[in-house]
Amino acid sequence: MLVFIGLGLTGNGITLKGLEELQKAEKAYAELYTSLIPELDLEKLESKIEKNIKVLQREDVEQNPQEVLESAKKKKVAFLVPGDPMIATTHVDLRLRAEESGIETKIIHSVSIETAAPGLAGLQSYKFGRSATLPFPDKPSETPYEVLEKNQDMGLHTLFLLDIEAEEEKYLTADQAIKTLLELENKLGRKVFTKDTLTVVVGRAGSSDSIVKGGKVKDLVEEDFGAPPQVLIVPGNLHFLEAEALEEFAKVPKEVVQENVEE
Amino acid sequence: MLVFIGLGLTGNGITLKGLEELQKAEKAYAELYTSLIPELDLEKLESKIEKNIKVLQREDVEQNPQEVLESAKKKKVAFLVPGDPMIATTHVDLRLRAEESGIETKIIHSVSIETAAPGLAGLQSYKFGRSATLPFPDKPSETPYEVLEKNQDMGLHTLFLLDIEAEEEKYLTADQAIKTLLELENKLGRKVFTKDTLTVVVGRAGSSDSIVKGGKVKDLVEEDFGAPPQVLIVPGNLHFLEAEALEEFAKVPKEVVQENVEE
Repeated sequence: MLVFIGLGLTGNGITLKGLEELQKAEKAYAELYTSLIPELDLEKLESKIEKNIKVLQREDVEQNPQEVLESAKKKKVAFLVPGDPMIATTHVDLRLRAEESGIETKIIHSVSIETAAPGLAGLQSYKFGRSATLPFPDKPSETPYEVLEKNQDMGLHTLFLLDIEAEEEKYLTADQAIKTLLELENKLGRKVFTKDTLTVVVGRAGSSDSIVKGGKVKDLVEEDFGAPPQVLIVPGNLHFLEAEALEEFAKVPKEVVQENVEE
Repeated sequence: MLVFIGLGLTGNGITLKGLEELQKAEKAYAELYTSLIPELDLEKLESKIEKNIKVLQREDVEQNPQEVLESAKKKKVAFLVPGDPMIATTHVDLRLRAEESGIETKIIHSVSIETAAPGLAGLQSYKFGRSATLPFPDKPSETPYEVLEKNQDMGLHTLFLLDIEAEEEKYLTADQAIKTLLELENKLGRKVFTKDTLTVVVGRAGSSDSIVKGGKVKDLVEEDFGAPPQVLIVPGNLHFLEAEALEEFAKVPKEVVQENVEE
């Protein structure tokens, strides 16, 4: 049996149910390359469950998952992953391989940035369109710009996840992400993301020093939002309650918020 | 200080961080009317934190939040909510009222159906468009149909939450939801949701008897998916890995899956 258990966004982000399953498992693995978990203390978790947790590298999971699968054939194996499991394709792939080898699987959910970030900003999650990932500058893509454009046409909010190469300790930051979008605007020129676009940065969601900061792009682009992980939200039309929330929680100036309130 | 703490989708769905905060709180409230949490044992949670949890009714939160706000002015107060906090407008409203009265607030996130359901079905969360709620038949709305139509135009998946009136113990079930969409199809006739549309039902996500079942609408409409809560997913274009996942995890027949794979 292979149990995928979400670690959530920060230390102690695992649920009680997840901890229970981890305690019952005979072997525990973790992958920490699909995201960064601030304040995670694996040793403390190990002492709590009286078991070692073997941290796997990307290639152990994607190229050579045999060790995990072989153990899961005989034992109850826990596989810890950042956030809510199954957001990353690699976990769906591993679960499929397991089921196809006759191994029963189970998912223990946890917190995902996809609802945490909207919640922290006070934006309604049902008003988000498709989300996208902003890549590092050396892997340019026009997709994020196109996703934003379509969401804007429908008045919807857009969540941008920021690229990560955890094994090289590389994390795209919000100010770099804003520059990436401005460069796409320069290149494509469809007035989707300009210096006057209302944008919200959410940093270290769920941790004790999380930040939420919004404003016009020109007022955010030179700011330092501290340590990763960070995400970017470009709001669409705002309901008056969302507008109030952005003013209060993201410190967006009143006049900027007002420009985005839907009629 | 007012700390919003997510209870997640099922019993023991609170995170370790949430439990810690709850233990440190001097007073604890809960609202259980915005969703239904299978296997939730409030008494067990109370004995774990050695504190009573006062369950509030809808009007206590929406009309008369004074009790909560007054306590939070003097003490550290925990406010427990289903899922991930701030998905429901009512919590954003309460948080705003608190901050405007000078009360510091904090959010401790938990599992949300918005990532759990896609994960259980093996569908990629970034390929979801806007989500919508399907209402009870006595409050008809064309919005869900329109949301689905727009998502379909873009090849995106659609998550439908199902209406709930927890205080009257009324929960819309997936088979009723399918009928609602078929009636909208009958009325509007834009071939958005027909008897041949691929659909996936996720029931009791995260609980020990959760189910995931997909197929053509005509093969699902007469099925009984058991107890609430349930949600509906209408997939858009499928990546080959999503197709494999739907076959394996949602038991969708191979030929039905194949019709929806993107070229």
